[in-house]
Amino acid sequence: MSNNITPQFYTVSRSERNSVNRHQSFFILFTGLSGSGKSTIANNLERQLQQRGLKTFTLDGDNLRLGLNKDLLFSPEDRKENLRRMAETGKLMVNAGLITLAAFISPLDSDRKMIQTIIGTEDYIEIYLSTTLNVCEQRDVKGLYAKARQGLIPDFTGVSAPYESPTNPNLDIDNELTSLENPTSEILFYLTNRLLPIE
Amino acid sequence: MSNNITPQFYTVSRSERNSVNRHQSFFILFTGLSGSGKSTIANNLERQLQQRGLKTFTLDGDNLRLGLNKDLLFSPEDRKENLRRMAETGKLMVNAGLITLAAFISPLDSDRKMIQTIIGTEDYIEIYLSTTLNVCEQRDVKGLYAKARQGLIPDFTGVSAPYESPTNPNLDIDNELTSLENPTSEILFYLTNRLLPIE
Repeated sequence: MSNNITPQFYTVSRSERNSVNRHQSFFILFTGLSGSGKSTIANNLERQLQQRGLKTFTLDGDNLRLGLNKDLLFSPEDRKENLRRMAETGKLMVNAGLITLAAFISPLDSDRKMIQTIIGTEDYIEIYLSTTLNVCEQRDVKGLYAKARQGLIPDFTGVSAPYESPTNPNLDIDNELTSLENPTSEILFYLTNRLLPIE
Repeated sequence: MSNNITPQFYTVSRSERNSVNRHQSFFILFTGLSGSGKSTIANNLERQLQQRGLKTFTLDGDNLRLGLNKDLLFSPEDRKENLRRMAETGKLMVNAGLITLAAFISPLDSDRKMIQTIIGTEDYIEIYLSTTLNVCEQRDVKGLYAKARQGLIPDFTGVSAPYESPTNPNLDIDNELTSLENPTSEILFYLTNRLLPIE
């Protein structure tokens, strides 16, 4: 059926949107175990970026599963498809001129490689929340680890499904001991050059 | 598995984004036959909105099929899923503060009702490109009608698959006789109240 589809010309280009917004657009993946602080840190970073007048959006695993991906379950195939659609949506957001934050467990090295390929290497930043399983499980903010240990949630990352630690993330943040402000400042410092205003 | 998912609190709200951008965000569906002018008019409108300093994005059927929806074919089920994902992505874009234009054939009344339900009635505007089949087929910009008549493209809307005309669109535009500027002006006039700046 591919002869039925031709790429359409976008009248308004990404570089034009970046120019109007006066900043670059790019994609940040926050990867780590459930309870490692992905959503909290992403939200905190987004607040800081907004206060600087930048255009942003956050894609969240739970929210996507209630909408775009609500037909998917938690089999390995469905988890991969969940991330593929997230990355394709993220790419559209980056093309729309938004600094796009994505808080997804994304447990496998092959998942993260796929996301990077879809987004494009130049636009992809990987931040690893390396909070240990032990700490995540002690926090258990949503009570999911307790359920997983009871066998009520199958294929739960860290308990009954693997998490492959990133080997070469752009940043590695263990938020076990730090307050919320510190990881955000660390990320903002890392992003300094990408956040320089476009004149 | 629904007990595994809890909606996440968005730190930056849609109304805050609208306030910073100083305009509302909403969704416009351009529906009509292949060749009716959907993408052309959507692109022209987007250009005009950009020139007014508004934040916009255009979702296009062909582009989505090369990315987010590349796993889908053209069976009735896949065409519906294609539109469901488009609408869910559109909803995210509207939440991100963007005036979101969508150029999709969306041939069935039930498709358009689904899109409206996902987007939310208040944010949904339907523009029907009522250019006749005869005119679309004479234009045949992409050569698709010729292929469809030869049986090379199954389930082709207007030839071998139905197009149900919208019964109550917000606007009905037959661009058979008009130049490009006229439909865009007509749409901009219709949008007057929605485009009033937020102070």
